[in-house]
Amino acid sequence: MLTLDKIYHAAHILKGIIRPTDLIKVQGINDQCEVYLKPENLQITGSFKIRGSYYKIAQLSVEEKSKGVIACSAGNHAQGVALAAQKHGIKASICIPDNAPISKVEATKAFGAEVILVEGSYDDAYNKAIQLQEKTGATFIHPFNDPMVIAGQGTLGLEILSDLPDVDSIIVPIGGGGLISGIAFTIKSLNPKIKVYGVQASGAASMYDSIKNNRIQTLTTVKTIADGLAVKTPGSQTFDICEHYVDDIITVTDDEISTAILTMIEKHKLVAEGAGAVSVAAALFNKLPLAGQKVVCLVSGGNIDVTILSRVIDRGLQKSGRLAKLTIELLDKPGQLVGVSKIIADLGGNVVSVNHDRMDVNMDINSCFLEIALETRNQEHVNEIKKELTRQGYKIL
Amino acid sequence: MLTLDKIYHAAHILKGIIRPTDLIKVQGINDQCEVYLKPENLQITGSFKIRGSYYKIAQLSVEEKSKGVIACSAGNHAQGVALAAQKHGIKASICIPDNAPISKVEATKAFGAEVILVEGSYDDAYNKAIQLQEKTGATFIHPFNDPMVIAGQGTLGLEILSDLPDVDSIIVPIGGGGLISGIAFTIKSLNPKIKVYGVQASGAASMYDSIKNNRIQTLTTVKTIADGLAVKTPGSQTFDICEHYVDDIITVTDDEISTAILTMIEKHKLVAEGAGAVSVAAALFNKLPLAGQKVVCLVSGGNIDVTILSRVIDRGLQKSGRLAKLTIELLDKPGQLVGVSKIIADLGGNVVSVNHDRMDVNMDINSCFLEIALETRNQEHVNEIKKELTRQGYKIL
Repeated sequence: MLTLDKIYHAAHILKGIIRPTDLIKVQGINDQCEVYLKPENLQITGSFKIRGSYYKIAQLSVEEKSKGVIACSAGNHAQGVALAAQKHGIKASICIPDNAPISKVEATKAFGAEVILVEGSYDDAYNKAIQLQEKTGATFIHPFNDPMVIAGQGTLGLEILSDLPDVDSIIVPIGGGGLISGIAFTIKSLNPKIKVYGVQASGAASMYDSIKNNRIQTLTTVKTIADGLAVKTPGSQTFDICEHYVDDIITVTDDEISTAILTMIEKHKLVAEGAGAVSVAAALFNKLPLAGQKVVCLVSGGNIDVTILSRVIDRGLQKSGRLAKLTIELLDKPGQLVGVSKIIADLGGNVVSVNHDRMDVNMDINSCFLEIALETRNQEHVNEIKKELTRQGYKIL
Repeated sequence: MLTLDKIYHAAHILKGIIRPTDLIKVQGINDQCEVYLKPENLQITGSFKIRGSYYKIAQLSVEEKSKGVIACSAGNHAQGVALAAQKHGIKASICIPDNAPISKVEATKAFGAEVILVEGSYDDAYNKAIQLQEKTGATFIHPFNDPMVIAGQGTLGLEILSDLPDVDSIIVPIGGGGLISGIAFTIKSLNPKIKVYGVQASGAASMYDSIKNNRIQTLTTVKTIADGLAVKTPGSQTFDICEHYVDDIITVTDDEISTAILTMIEKHKLVAEGAGAVSVAAALFNKLPLAGQKVVCLVSGGNIDVTILSRVIDRGLQKSGRLAKLTIELLDKPGQLVGVSKIIADLGGNVVSVNHDRMDVNMDINSCFLEIALETRNQEHVNEIKKELTRQGYKIL
């Protein structure tokens, strides 16, 4: 059972193992309140997960330790368990679905774990882990539904209270619910006046649905940019704790999450993964009653695939009008490209790519398409360029 | 004149104004030594510059303050002076060359400064600032060649010594030399055994050249991705201090800087600008004798334009084999695109864009070019795909 004692004990055990990440006061997220980030993306392994898995493993008996541990994850939990086991000098076997990004697999191996790639989905990997566990007698380390794991994550509540005793609200991402369970239990036990809010991705809102319906719900599919939150069924223990201690749960969309990721990169110089950015998205898009308050957004991790990051940046640039992609129908005669280029250059746009296509079946026989990508200052700048092109007779599609 | 007294005094004055950024111990930069980052990209304004400019302004007389301050910068110094003036409640006028990124201009305005956009280069903006200064009697805040400014930057030396007293080497970016002058003076005054190394961008190595030639050199042109280090002539005072207190200066290339930026994003979840990443590049590419040591890389700032960041990421992905761009010559007959797509899909490559061009004048009348971009796992994966395409008769250009 989860107790405050266990959380204090976890804080003691984790001393010298984890980084006590500092609170960073930031501008540009929500000007109605004072926002602080708790950057667990800067934690060792790039996420908070090491807290719970290390404490859990530390509590195993000598005999249990001798048989090693086993886990199933395509993400941060894998790295947390692998490093925790390595630091204890015990064996870790991690089942990972074979479609997981190679970078996660490599990171887990780098911490000395045995990686078992399992064909199929997370559920297949989970079943394989349970099979292995029965055969070897290793201890299965659950990613969230375990009081020891929850106690480890709860140490974040103690750190926040110690660094900012007069905090009013804490915003926490929810996947399976282990992180928020630890924080909410800690905070409400010590100061029930502080609000604890949960945030889920709208494409994976299993805890949100469960709390609204007063019983555990299972989603048939999950789809979100915040892959760390893609959990179909919340834990039984975490559900109970959330029901008792969490003030409210809200959801954010993938577009809101992407904007939050880009905002943190530009304004705060921090790389968050989708799961880590949902708390910031909630504050950025005014989803919660925060006016006049001191607010902590828990940034749970930063392990985002760089190819995804690259897409998030491009999309964010387009949405904020700093990258524009125009398709222009030209008459297929000399001088048209020069004309367009000159208009764009005169108005200060910077062309980054051009594609000239006269083969499209949907067009007039005498015309062609010009696809042009350009760097612009903002949405007004894009509109200004479009307007001038139209004024000079070019047709923008 | 610079004294240790002034640096301690600056630390006192800056208390509660700046963030005392913490040291972050990191893996994956250089496995021969213990590497710590001092993340001044997480400083308010996104760079260390606020330290020097705030302390300088704090030392002005009441009369001087009443006349305001003036500065010239296209980058971090502008924001540092603007915020420092705002916090003192005095007027700041900042001359910025009109080709500066709009984001820097907006950030400077957001701190309440009057921005004067000057047509032309940095030198033109500088001349304008001097003109204005003569007319208004405002105090000109030099970005580096001023003992008060240098003392402010020197507080970083005190923080490093306090957090890691047994540090062996500190690696510091050099543009005009203000930052390293403050740090080297502080460190060598308190513990001369600690090495202080400077790093310049190879395309803007004015202090490097000056120290090697034992007198101040002026570069005719500067060209580097680290725009914060693009200084043609080092300061007279900073040159003297570097000559006395800095152990060695080395240079890094734009490719090395880009790799360092990408490494920090992927492994350490931190966004550094080019100038901020040169210290990490020096450790990453083994440019200094660091084996067995505790090493601090000073990450001076994180104000990188997102469009540049996006290019750095794409380039880094291509260099590490995670994004491949292939141009394939096809016979212009049905089924060719299907054939290529199937080979790539079967080998696990993920196509992100396709351009099919049969208009190029350089090709055989019966063939066409297929430009294809795909996400891959690593360089071996790219080679495997290329090999199979070649084996099945496709010609890769």
